[in-house]
Amino acid sequence: MKKIPVAILGATGAVGQKFIKLLENHPWFEVRELVASTRSSGKTYQVATHWKQNTPIPQAVKNLVVQELDAPLQSPILFSGLDSSVAGEAETRYAQLGHWVISNSKNHRMDPDVPLVIPEINPDHFELVRQQKTSGKIVTNSNCSTMFLAMALHPLHRRWGVQRVMVTTMQAISGAGYPGVPSWDILGNVIPYISDEEEKMQTETQKILGQLTQGRIEMAPFTVSASCNRVAVVEGHTESVSVEFVDKPQSLDEVVAVLRQFRGLPQERNLPFAPPEPLVVFEENDRPQPQRDVDTYNGMATLVGRLRSCPVLDVKFTLLGHNTVRGAAGAAILNAETLVELGYIKP
Amino acid sequence: MKKIPVAILGATGAVGQKFIKLLENHPWFEVRELVASTRSSGKTYQVATHWKQNTPIPQAVKNLVVQELDAPLQSPILFSGLDSSVAGEAETRYAQLGHWVISNSKNHRMDPDVPLVIPEINPDHFELVRQQKTSGKIVTNSNCSTMFLAMALHPLHRRWGVQRVMVTTMQAISGAGYPGVPSWDILGNVIPYISDEEEKMQTETQKILGQLTQGRIEMAPFTVSASCNRVAVVEGHTESVSVEFVDKPQSLDEVVAVLRQFRGLPQERNLPFAPPEPLVVFEENDRPQPQRDVDTYNGMATLVGRLRSCPVLDVKFTLLGHNTVRGAAGAAILNAETLVELGYIKP
Amino acid sequence: MKKIPVAILGATGAVGQKFIKLLENHPWFEVRELVASTRSSGKTYQVATHWKQNTPIPQAVKNLVVQELDAPLQSPILFSGLDSSVAGEAETRYAQLGHWVISNSKNHRMDPDVPLVIPEINPDHFELVRQQKTSGKIVTNSNCSTMFLAMALHPLHRRWGVQRVMVTTMQAISGAGYPGVPSWDILGNVIPYISDEEEKMQTETQKILGQLTQGRIEMAPFTVSASCNRVAVVEGHTESVSVEFVDKPQSLDEVVAVLRQFRGLPQERNLPFAPPEPLVVFEENDRPQPQRDVDTYNGMATLVGRLRSCPVLDVKFTLLGHNTVRGAAGAAILNAETLVELGYIKP
Amino acid sequence: MKKIPVAILGATGAVGQKFIKLLENHPWFEVRELVASTRSSGKTYQVATHWKQNTPIPQAVKNLVVQELDAPLQSPILFSGLDSSVAGEAETRYAQLGHWVISNSKNHRMDPDVPLVIPEINPDHFELVRQQKTSGKIVTNSNCSTMFLAMALHPLHRRWGVQRVMVTTMQAISGAGYPGVPSWDILGNVIPYISDEEEKMQTETQKILGQLTQGRIEMAPFTVSASCNRVAVVEGHTESVSVEFVDKPQSLDEVVAVLRQFRGLPQERNLPFAPPEPLVVFEENDRPQPQRDVDTYNGMATLVGRLRSCPVLDVKFTLLGHNTVRGAAGAAILNAETLVELGYIKP
Repeated sequence: MKKIPVAILGATGAVGQKFIKLLENHPWFEVRELVASTRSSGKTYQVATHWKQNTPIPQAVKNLVVQELDAPLQSPILFSGLDSSVAGEAETRYAQLGHWVISNSKNHRMDPDVPLVIPEINPDHFELVRQQKTSGKIVTNSNCSTMFLAMALHPLHRRWGVQRVMVTTMQAISGAGYPGVPSWDILGNVIPYISDEEEKMQTETQKILGQLTQGRIEMAPFTVSASCNRVAVVEGHTESVSVEFVDKPQSLDEVVAVLRQFRGLPQERNLPFAPPEPLVVFEENDRPQPQRDVDTYNGMATLVGRLRSCPVLDVKFTLLGHNTVRGAAGAAILNAETLVELGYIKP
Repeated sequence: MKKIPVAILGATGAVGQKFIKLLENHPWFEVRELVASTRSSGKTYQVATHWKQNTPIPQAVKNLVVQELDAPLQSPILFSGLDSSVAGEAETRYAQLGHWVISNSKNHRMDPDVPLVIPEINPDHFELVRQQKTSGKIVTNSNCSTMFLAMALHPLHRRWGVQRVMVTTMQAISGAGYPGVPSWDILGNVIPYISDEEEKMQTETQKILGQLTQGRIEMAPFTVSASCNRVAVVEGHTESVSVEFVDKPQSLDEVVAVLRQFRGLPQERNLPFAPPEPLVVFEENDRPQPQRDVDTYNGMATLVGRLRSCPVLDVKFTLLGHNTVRGAAGAAILNAETLVELGYIKP
Repeated sequence: MKKIPVAILGATGAVGQKFIKLLENHPWFEVRELVASTRSSGKTYQVATHWKQNTPIPQAVKNLVVQELDAPLQSPILFSGLDSSVAGEAETRYAQLGHWVISNSKNHRMDPDVPLVIPEINPDHFELVRQQKTSGKIVTNSNCSTMFLAMALHPLHRRWGVQRVMVTTMQAISGAGYPGVPSWDILGNVIPYISDEEEKMQTETQKILGQLTQGRIEMAPFTVSASCNRVAVVEGHTESVSVEFVDKPQSLDEVVAVLRQFRGLPQERNLPFAPPEPLVVFEENDRPQPQRDVDTYNGMATLVGRLRSCPVLDVKFTLLGHNTVRGAAGAAILNAETLVELGYIKP
Repeated sequence: MKKIPVAILGATGAVGQKFIKLLENHPWFEVRELVASTRSSGKTYQVATHWKQNTPIPQAVKNLVVQELDAPLQSPILFSGLDSSVAGEAETRYAQLGHWVISNSKNHRMDPDVPLVIPEINPDHFELVRQQKTSGKIVTNSNCSTMFLAMALHPLHRRWGVQRVMVTTMQAISGAGYPGVPSWDILGNVIPYISDEEEKMQTETQKILGQLTQGRIEMAPFTVSASCNRVAVVEGHTESVSVEFVDKPQSLDEVVAVLRQFRGLPQERNLPFAPPEPLVVFEENDRPQPQRDVDTYNGMATLVGRLRSCPVLDVKFTLLGHNTVRGAAGAAILNAETLVELGYIKP
């Protein structure tokens, strides 16, 4: 298969860099165009970017010249890691010009005609694009913290019905981009607040686990309460979760089995970025941990541990995921792979 | 007032050191005797201890000779920071010998005839000591994480009745003593497990907020569900809390007012270690934070922030407290001050 | 004594905040005016500043209205923590208007007619102000890393003559101000570069230890080679130093004695911010350490440890100092106290 | 080629775990036997070890039963990560039994008949084994900090002659093994002391760069002065180095060229663990950094940056290397590969 040319919007930012790193050697996609702010445009990528990844800039990208945000592009697929201050309009404009905009930005996630998709959960929601009036289309993936929560809740919800969810997050600083969190604020510290994050977790989860009925999403009928904290971790969001079910599981073993057996479309179709198991369940009582587990399946797995009864709701557990891979750039790439696999995007 | 001589049990450990640091210049108590394991006994304190505090060893303590665990002691009051592997028997033995054992160890906390007291909340529970058959008495303070939760719940429970509580902690490494948590396990990491901590929070809170009726404690009739995590913070436990009430507060402002107006016996009697306000409520949305707020009122305050509605239970907030001061040595000292103030201990 | 009114230039920045914190309750000076960028001017201080200290904003300062950089000021003394991008011109202008500008900024430090003073070392250099043509005067203190090195070298240089110095620093992130170092760059990391820092250490040390002769400073005739690194520490610069002498000390004990016995003018005159001992020498082989020793004498001491022979030069040791207290705001305050004490500034 | 069976001594420790991780899928060696303390012996590896690596225990090793330290072994090659408290005798005993002991422990490094080898530098020193009277042989690699210093000095010494070296290290906590450095000691801190480390750097460097003449090593005739510090980094030792030469390089470019062009036997023979370039020189002024560069060439490269003139000696630079890979287990594996390649060990 000839590779599909793709462009990266917001190429010099933290998410943009991760797109470029992850797409190196991708079997289907090839980074051909880069878009960033006017400060960077006209320069080669290696000059324009302050590269923060722990592998070198891919050879094929190093010398690409960065273009301005309204530059005309050739690539059919645009991966967007644009800052939310500009993503809204820019993504709409590129969709009008006929591009598939696979966005990690928050701006269009809750638009009624924009799919908010995790391919293991709700690939059928991609049908929403038919309601977009533009020749190109916008699809989005969830906020990073929402990703791991939705992934764990989905098989449980399908089986027993989720009624109420309490989640407290301990989020990595990479989620705030670069320069992001000042070291003075986080060294030896916890910041008990992340702007707008609790709201995203509460509503995005309901949309992703919602039902597509007659061209619109009916939000999942459960309630989520989130408390979001920033901790001194570089990569990996940890979440303490408690869930109340409509129908009660017979045992914790049954819950573990449902989590472990869960597979979605990316696994069935064996997509390049699909983790072999979407959910990995630990039995050790002190896992998962960011420093040791975040790279499981190249950062594409959602890790579950400490499954136990909750005295207040029904079941408690700990989640962990790689916030800039599965929670951001990797999620968008898997969305694009799914769109190609399902024939929405023709190579 | 002539100072009351006190001994420190477990003097070389993390809690023992904090007792010694905090009691320097105490107006009522004077450290005269030190007890530690046989490895340390017979040496002067400055030789025996691996001092980890950020102020020097007090002059009056430096050259005291450390005694063995079964050494006879002269001091009427013993502050115990003994390791739980030896605290159980040792504390009982010293009570039999006529000493007041003011313990920070977990061993006797849940004994039916041992008071588990936070003086702002349940100083009446000290009456339980009358049921101890020994000439001396044992009194205990709570686990460090329980301290801040109980302190915040008490005025709310008194006013509206607490029904259910969800709490997720992000605890400092100093809570594990020294050497405690290996740096390899915690640098840039979160450990989603602290042995036995969740159980302590769930039961101790119920005892402290329970009723003393006919010589026994009736546990408070609410349910607590705790999820305990270790983070890369040196001092200061942060807790994300959500509470369901029996009677509903009219507004969040009313909740804030109840927390802010709360005063207990230590404040009324103006005890040396009493924080002027037991609960300090922040309005900034990103506070309290360990690095910036943990030393409020010399580490004796419990800090509350981010008070807001909870979509699942009723009200959510963030707690912070100094785990080795208010959560350990400072709590025991305030217990001792209260016992003197109330006449249990005669100078 | 009636307190002298002072203004803080750059009041909302990291150094400006430290000035305000340290001057609370100062016996001689009282903060009356605040100056900051136009973004802050016209607002009360508590609204304008993003307060990062671990004590509250002083009551007397909270509601002062911040003024613009060219506002006319009443205070005879201005403490400047201005950013170097504006400090040069602004400080000159205020000196022309008749103020004493006590600056922590780098801009004028190496000007031939501006004293660069550490009061324990070269208070006689204040005489240089007589060469400034303005009615007001500018005096400066050294860069933070230079402070501790100069302090340790001075008594050694006076006794044996310093010939060559090698120094490698491990500097705290607070030295870069706020927001300063992004957490992504420093968590679990070392950055082997701090812009312009090595040059400052090499030249400022020579000026401070130089001789004032006929109205000009003759630079001290030794050579300094500095390598500056940033580490994940909040407060406290650590330095590994090796020194070669002109005349050789007889023994390490003699070196220790010279360091320990050193006292300067601030000690002799018992100035408010003078540490009782400018240099504190540790005997433990693993001290000084930022987390444990940086607050010695309220952060105004320079700490020395690990004194031993150097196989390449003559003597090696480790230095530590509080970079935002003794290395910045505290140094400027001690300069002002000295100027008052010596009669340069009349109350 | 049929794989050579190898045993790991000290298999449950930090270095032992790294051997097992690195040898997974090694083309020449296969882990068949594990040896650890009596506490672990008799258990399967997955039960006996507290696995701290960020990849799972290799399948082939998981269920191997751990043997006691004096157990008879079948493997011709033993990789030793034994603690120095037992390594001395145990390694000698295994050599007497006919095994090749490839040791990372310090005990025998300075023995006159034991090669201390970095294969890029002094593979000819392996000849020393002929003087060992045992049927098996002991060979060692250097201390972790020494590794990177020796690697950078060797091509410079060969070309211009090194005369004096000053080095200050900022070492990762993984160098102290597990549990190793307590988090209380290192979070937000620098410890200016590592037991015995400075001495090792000073003497081991001289042996490695020494000449083998008539069956004995003549130590290299330069002097090293080391100051060793521990910082809050997990993997990667950073070193600030200054070097004085006998003959002076014409320019810094010449120094860079000599470092970049350096290749040794592992590169020439293309050994499995050989980094393509032993020394990678950075031009960016803020590199190398542990978080971003330590994994270069799978952690087997030595990284050099900030090459510049030194006002005191001749040339300064920053070094970085992966202390538990190139500085420990990976170094031993490359030694074993070299011994096979050179025919000392016959498959």
